[in-house]
Amino acid sequence: MVLGFVGALSLRATARRGVRHIHGTVVAMKRIEKDTFGEIEVPSDRYWGAQTQRSIGNFDICRDTDRMPIAVVRAFGHLKRAAAVVNEGLGLDPKVSAAIVEAADELIAGKLDDNFPLVVWQTGSGTQTNMNVNEVLSNRGIEILGGQMGSKNPVHPNDHVNKSQSSNDTFPTAMHIATAIEIQEHLIPSLTELTDALDKKATEFSDIIKIGRTHCQDAVPLTVGQEFSAYVQQLRYGIERVQGTLPRVYNLAIGGTAVGTGLNTYTGFSERICEELEKTTKLPFVPAPNKFEALAAHDALVEVNGAFNTVACSLMKIANDIRLLGSGPRCGLGELVLPENEPGSSIMPGKVNPTQCEAMTMVCAQVMGNTVAVSVGGSNGHFELNVFKPVMVSNTLHSSRLLGDACTSFRRNCVEDLKVNEERVDQLLNESLMLVTALNPVIGYDNAARIAKTAHKNGTTLKEEAMALDLLTAEEFDAAVVPKNMLGPKDYQK
Amino acid sequence: MVLGFVGALSLRATARRGVRHIHGTVVAMKRIEKDTFGEIEVPSDRYWGAQTQRSIGNFDICRDTDRMPIAVVRAFGHLKRAAAVVNEGLGLDPKVSAAIVEAADELIAGKLDDNFPLVVWQTGSGTQTNMNVNEVLSNRGIEILGGQMGSKNPVHPNDHVNKSQSSNDTFPTAMHIATAIEIQEHLIPSLTELTDALDKKATEFSDIIKIGRTHCQDAVPLTVGQEFSAYVQQLRYGIERVQGTLPRVYNLAIGGTAVGTGLNTYTGFSERICEELEKTTKLPFVPAPNKFEALAAHDALVEVNGAFNTVACSLMKIANDIRLLGSGPRCGLGELVLPENEPGSSIMPGKVNPTQCEAMTMVCAQVMGNTVAVSVGGSNGHFELNVFKPVMVSNTLHSSRLLGDACTSFRRNCVEDLKVNEERVDQLLNESLMLVTALNPVIGYDNAARIAKTAHKNGTTLKEEAMALDLLTAEEFDAAVVPKNMLGPKDYQK
Amino acid sequence: MVLGFVGALSLRATARRGVRHIHGTVVAMKRIEKDTFGEIEVPSDRYWGAQTQRSIGNFDICRDTDRMPIAVVRAFGHLKRAAAVVNEGLGLDPKVSAAIVEAADELIAGKLDDNFPLVVWQTGSGTQTNMNVNEVLSNRGIEILGGQMGSKNPVHPNDHVNKSQSSNDTFPTAMHIATAIEIQEHLIPSLTELTDALDKKATEFSDIIKIGRTHCQDAVPLTVGQEFSAYVQQLRYGIERVQGTLPRVYNLAIGGTAVGTGLNTYTGFSERICEELEKTTKLPFVPAPNKFEALAAHDALVEVNGAFNTVACSLMKIANDIRLLGSGPRCGLGELVLPENEPGSSIMPGKVNPTQCEAMTMVCAQVMGNTVAVSVGGSNGHFELNVFKPVMVSNTLHSSRLLGDACTSFRRNCVEDLKVNEERVDQLLNESLMLVTALNPVIGYDNAARIAKTAHKNGTTLKEEAMALDLLTAEEFDAAVVPKNMLGPKDYQK
Amino acid sequence: MVLGFVGALSLRATARRGVRHIHGTVVAMKRIEKDTFGEIEVPSDRYWGAQTQRSIGNFDICRDTDRMPIAVVRAFGHLKRAAAVVNEGLGLDPKVSAAIVEAADELIAGKLDDNFPLVVWQTGSGTQTNMNVNEVLSNRGIEILGGQMGSKNPVHPNDHVNKSQSSNDTFPTAMHIATAIEIQEHLIPSLTELTDALDKKATEFSDIIKIGRTHCQDAVPLTVGQEFSAYVQQLRYGIERVQGTLPRVYNLAIGGTAVGTGLNTYTGFSERICEELEKTTKLPFVPAPNKFEALAAHDALVEVNGAFNTVACSLMKIANDIRLLGSGPRCGLGELVLPENEPGSSIMPGKVNPTQCEAMTMVCAQVMGNTVAVSVGGSNGHFELNVFKPVMVSNTLHSSRLLGDACTSFRRNCVEDLKVNEERVDQLLNESLMLVTALNPVIGYDNAARIAKTAHKNGTTLKEEAMALDLLTAEEFDAAVVPKNMLGPKDYQK
Repeated sequence: MVLGFVGALSLRATARRGVRHIHGTVVAMKRIEKDTFGEIEVPSDRYWGAQTQRSIGNFDICRDTDRMPIAVVRAFGHLKRAAAVVNEGLGLDPKVSAAIVEAADELIAGKLDDNFPLVVWQTGSGTQTNMNVNEVLSNRGIEILGGQMGSKNPVHPNDHVNKSQSSNDTFPTAMHIATAIEIQEHLIPSLTELTDALDKKATEFSDIIKIGRTHCQDAVPLTVGQEFSAYVQQLRYGIERVQGTLPRVYNLAIGGTAVGTGLNTYTGFSERICEELEKTTKLPFVPAPNKFEALAAHDALVEVNGAFNTVACSLMKIANDIRLLGSGPRCGLGELVLPENEPGSSIMPGKVNPTQCEAMTMVCAQVMGNTVAVSVGGSNGHFELNVFKPVMVSNTLHSSRLLGDACTSFRRNCVEDLKVNEERVDQLLNESLMLVTALNPVIGYDNAARIAKTAHKNGTTLKEEAMALDLLTAEEFDAAVVPKNMLGPKDYQK
Repeated sequence: MVLGFVGALSLRATARRGVRHIHGTVVAMKRIEKDTFGEIEVPSDRYWGAQTQRSIGNFDICRDTDRMPIAVVRAFGHLKRAAAVVNEGLGLDPKVSAAIVEAADELIAGKLDDNFPLVVWQTGSGTQTNMNVNEVLSNRGIEILGGQMGSKNPVHPNDHVNKSQSSNDTFPTAMHIATAIEIQEHLIPSLTELTDALDKKATEFSDIIKIGRTHCQDAVPLTVGQEFSAYVQQLRYGIERVQGTLPRVYNLAIGGTAVGTGLNTYTGFSERICEELEKTTKLPFVPAPNKFEALAAHDALVEVNGAFNTVACSLMKIANDIRLLGSGPRCGLGELVLPENEPGSSIMPGKVNPTQCEAMTMVCAQVMGNTVAVSVGGSNGHFELNVFKPVMVSNTLHSSRLLGDACTSFRRNCVEDLKVNEERVDQLLNESLMLVTALNPVIGYDNAARIAKTAHKNGTTLKEEAMALDLLTAEEFDAAVVPKNMLGPKDYQK
Repeated sequence: MVLGFVGALSLRATARRGVRHIHGTVVAMKRIEKDTFGEIEVPSDRYWGAQTQRSIGNFDICRDTDRMPIAVVRAFGHLKRAAAVVNEGLGLDPKVSAAIVEAADELIAGKLDDNFPLVVWQTGSGTQTNMNVNEVLSNRGIEILGGQMGSKNPVHPNDHVNKSQSSNDTFPTAMHIATAIEIQEHLIPSLTELTDALDKKATEFSDIIKIGRTHCQDAVPLTVGQEFSAYVQQLRYGIERVQGTLPRVYNLAIGGTAVGTGLNTYTGFSERICEELEKTTKLPFVPAPNKFEALAAHDALVEVNGAFNTVACSLMKIANDIRLLGSGPRCGLGELVLPENEPGSSIMPGKVNPTQCEAMTMVCAQVMGNTVAVSVGGSNGHFELNVFKPVMVSNTLHSSRLLGDACTSFRRNCVEDLKVNEERVDQLLNESLMLVTALNPVIGYDNAARIAKTAHKNGTTLKEEAMALDLLTAEEFDAAVVPKNMLGPKDYQK
Repeated sequence: MVLGFVGALSLRATARRGVRHIHGTVVAMKRIEKDTFGEIEVPSDRYWGAQTQRSIGNFDICRDTDRMPIAVVRAFGHLKRAAAVVNEGLGLDPKVSAAIVEAADELIAGKLDDNFPLVVWQTGSGTQTNMNVNEVLSNRGIEILGGQMGSKNPVHPNDHVNKSQSSNDTFPTAMHIATAIEIQEHLIPSLTELTDALDKKATEFSDIIKIGRTHCQDAVPLTVGQEFSAYVQQLRYGIERVQGTLPRVYNLAIGGTAVGTGLNTYTGFSERICEELEKTTKLPFVPAPNKFEALAAHDALVEVNGAFNTVACSLMKIANDIRLLGSGPRCGLGELVLPENEPGSSIMPGKVNPTQCEAMTMVCAQVMGNTVAVSVGGSNGHFELNVFKPVMVSNTLHSSRLLGDACTSFRRNCVEDLKVNEERVDQLLNESLMLVTALNPVIGYDNAARIAKTAHKNGTTLKEEAMALDLLTAEEFDAAVVPKNMLGPKDYQK
């Protein structure tokens, strides 16, 4: 058996190679694995065992595209490593423990990625992925210790790798670990960088006065910086919202075993697991206060998706605004100038499109849909176990990754090089009728309305009509209507 | 004019009465109101003015059912009252201020409810409802001061009632006030009472050992109390989730006026409004840190609905479990006995149905849908103003009220009188094969599996097969398989 | 939000009236009704009986706003009338049958609306509303025949009004009848009228050439009429989509009785009911081909909502376009002029907002949310009966009514008086760079792109740069770039 | 989650291979490609060009998982092939046309899959994927004709491969082609086979009488075959629903070019394209009646997803029922026996779980979420072009594939080997109290209710109580209560 080869080629490439390269040596490419159902052949160059192989056969659903997210597998690496360490203190042979730890470290480092062929659409408890991990760590551990793969000796997938655990508590634990890592290491930094980039723009544009728009109609002025400060605030809240969900994500199911009671595990097991996890993940995981809840419901992920959905709504607004404010070049609003990243049209030369806004808003639509998928899954648990775990975690991780990647792409390829067309902004400001609002405190609402309506009807300026209607002199008008005096409240003076 | 009559009959009743009772006196039933569009007739026994009347004519959409929630109107009462008080310090005639305060107090007390005929499906800024409130308080204020309704003198709807305000900041302020009041006064108490009732049941049932179910299949035992403790935990988290959104709901748009700049208002206005609001609502409102965001986006409501959606998923799980655990009486699981509140079937006598679970799960479905409506609205803002305000607040308030009312109904009519059919629970526990799990640490996973599979095949008991397979003696079996020893982890002993 | 009903306010009015009018005569205001649970007091001026009264007490959930839609109650009127007629042929006393028919006719005519106080959030089978109808028709029938209300004699609510029926088949039958009537009588006509109005505009605007916009960026020209023709096509498809769902809505559950078998009814009953229904509704109802499906699932309503959701997406696009094309008056696109229906702002005089677009898009958001509520309900049925019936039908009817009313409002108050600002449209067209596309076949894509890019950079015209770059003479340019030649494909000439 | 494509792994494999195999020959691994933005390096062993390469750099969003579905790329193969054939008749050099056809045939056959590295999250028009296809066919065509890749000669990606086309009409055309092929070749056959398998079970189980369940409570009997016939009917309707959307999917945008006018194409082009497409796809494509609609809106895909969503609700119901009816083995309903496909638990030996039901219901949750993503995208189009095309088509294809694959897996691994536990079914039937319904026509509803309630209270049988209450003799009871007589309506006999 030649299994030293690790991860160099993808699974499918291997399969093809197998078909292409074998010359009457098919038997040499397989080994026999065994579970309570009996024997089954598995590829000899893969570490997985019988239960993984059965799942491949039983769940041929979007096999090409819908693998269990690798982030879940890596999270299992952290967990199984922690369990091996803790189990050593609970009687596990130190040699076996060390082998599991070594194998788990390889898994965390991504060296065993090619050994997780299962799809999301498997058993709803994620048992098959838990067993996939158990089998891979068992066989890799056996290999490290010089044993025979498939023998379950000296590293048994259930009795050793899964010791004191059940799929029912390990899978939701891995769901939470993966989600927390993904949020902390990927999403929050990306959101923060985008927020900072927008904040920099808010500062950069803080002196440019523009016409405001409410109901998509001309309104009173504000600065472009003020406009962008709203985006910054939306995302700052967004970061708060996502972070606000983490306390419940840090609560782990581990220690609940099969139904939440903790049968077949030991007092203090979950606390010690969390201590070990904190060492490798640097995240403050703690045992869930109620393990029954932690297995039977995944409201924590529904909650996380509620935050993602809110962030998606924010980003949809921001990207939509930027796309519309940058519309043109000559027949749109034309206030913003977006960076040109690529030719925009295969037929219309010279056209440059807000493609980053488009990618971002598509991502937001997807996140809004993923939220519903997770909610439907979360609402449909039965009794002691929710069995929509894989669909819940895969959508959660997908949304997190989508938002994070899209924020980075949007920042780099759109926001950082965003410019204001100051000439255009100034022209629109001066054409507007809505500066009339400044006259409310001077001549009253009804008179101000009369001026605006007349100017609108006649295609004239406010000043012309203010004078024609004998409501204000030119001097009074100029003193009252000053855009830069319209950007904030005044101090009250009796 | 006979307008002393207030709120005795509903609007529609009045309309019918009008049609039935008038004898050539139609003119006497109307008065003329005026706005910048001109004159319009309004019913003489209502306080609203021209802009409200126009909205009635322009938006005939689900008029019978979809009124702007009265909670929004009452929230406006708090706000307009606060504004009158603060405006007095900013030059408003104390007599006018006092009249507005008196009218607003009537509005808050529900005495003017019949004067708010507008529907949700109006302008997306809620301007028409802001004007409805302004007009009603103006005319009622005028009446209090002995003036002539419709004269806008001495209490002008725009210049006085709306002083230093815009629809653009008042409507989102009222949205937040209404949402916060509804959550604090109605939803949280109802959720808490249901949580407490379930917790009481968890205690009551804490000694009853039952079979657990994972994948809807027989699993290892737990107590009914443990099972219910998961529900309690779900709702405790749910309360945390809802409360966790409030900091951003307490941030008010007031002071932003038309586009967020605060044009036409005064420094310190929003802070003083929040102080006044705290007096009448007892809630810790503060000015939003960024008023541009507060007008242009309502992510805070999207976030609130994310929490509601999570609570709905929790309640769906709980109600579904209770319905299934109470299924029967003879051909279901039959573990729980639900109170009989009504005859269940018009054709099947003696049938009693889990109707409270059904109402609750329908409510949850609605809340899940409302969340999407709010998200679509929240994602679709343009520039300085989101114009999906009414649909966002009406769904938010609807969901809050639905969840609150449903929790109360479910608690009173289902949970509080829930009983366990102990005989049935015990019978199922003893029939189960899954007690075999207790043998894992004794004889290993594979042997334990063999016992369970054989007993399943032969329709025998675990004990019989354990002995037949020579894996355990009767004494060893009895010592190992003790349900009450399976309810938690053990202390590790070397 | 769900449909309430016309009588909601009257009932409340009545309750108040009761309080005002009684003088120690409380006993006279109540009568005793009885069901299998025992006796209960009901208001003496209402026709409902014991089961309705119990439901009022047991389901205090959004009582003010969420009544069972009156359309469902009226649909029951058609059904119970048909059943009385058919049951006469199956042994029902003709006098009793006639009394039920008379009462049902009153119910259909809306004369008994005040007698249906139940909310949507009741038993998920709608049993309580079926019994509400049975009780009202029974008592009204008894009254007609001179008997004593509450005596169930000579018209028994179960044995006579509900004869050969069950809630399990009548409620879904009423759901389908109400949905079909609502769609045929209200939604389709409103959609058709809006389509026709838009089509008229497409014709009216067919000669106005404008700049097209793709990615919100300037693109090649089309006519305003062509642009509007897309809206017309969207809605024509929309009508097809809604109508395409009706064949399955016309399939009625009646005849299935309790679980779909038809126990306790007679061969041919459902066929004869459908014949009677066609007489009063003019709609081609037929018995469902499989009654088990018709009780256990309401996929037909999920399907209907899928069509509504599609129509909502279409209308969202159309209303959004019109709002943006009408943005301005001076700082937006300004191509369309929307009718001014009301003052737009309480602070900005002269501002007119696209309020009909806003109402429409809010309606669309609601319909998109309602679709999810219905889907969640539809996916959650168990065994022989889906018990999310009320939430499914109430959302379906709400969406249908919302779309119908909004289409009418949008047509009347926005589309019919829509105008094009031809001066503005022409100005934008001539400023555009995208007419360059016409040069592709003449000088190739790369050269055309060079012209456009240079003009964009220099702020010049295409013609100037075409000449400056020596690619075309002025004459060649004028011959090649003719907007009215860019509005369609050319005939190929070798 | 979105569909990636078969070549994804190969590409990554290739990249790694590049790293391993190069020895100071980096320059040799790249070639220069050029577009209107300038020069850019591309991998020398790939056919794509400059615009594809730019998109890789600009859109680094979920690159590992979210490739543009290969089904879209293959659909483009059909389209570009057809265009080359038709363009030959419109002046395209026959040699160039032949080369494009040959390259397109390779693309359709999957031979060029490794050349489509772009993700879904790109420009919302799909322009970059259109250009990716144009570039690949251009370079492969050049190669076939012995030219130099990157020279655009003799096969130019825009002037030849994209001749008479625009991304704006080709991408939506490819969306429709891919959707139609996927539905016709994959989804409908899978749905049909599952329907047939369920129908076979309905026949197989047609004589087994069981207790019905409404509200999850015991109800009157039906046969297992009748119960399964409801599932069959749901899916038959589902097939109708999906097929009912196809007429609008067969309407193609091609011929609309940039904004729908057909500028730069020829009269009859779209008709001839559809004729060619019918040859290679065997599907009845026709030109869309309105090309403006076909570019600006993708309501047809929203509609398709409405049908998918309905099918998902149906399958959720069916899979849920089967899971619950198969619950046990000893403490659940236990009426169905599901095939054992794998060990169910890593800790509970002997446990077999309804994993196929779980995979199916997770798929349904995903489809329900995808529907929302598509709806949000569909509702957000602007002006002449919807720019949510990639997210709409990727979710549509994902849902179609998910449903198709899941139906096949569910059929093979669950339905086909489903058995009834007849002993258990019979036992439950005989224990039930609901057979009492058969007594309604004999002794009236109220008496029947009394019997059932008393038996329920006393734990006795109906017969015992019927006799004890002196309502029926034993003979009368036996004559009246015969389950097999309760399975359908009776003929009426006067």
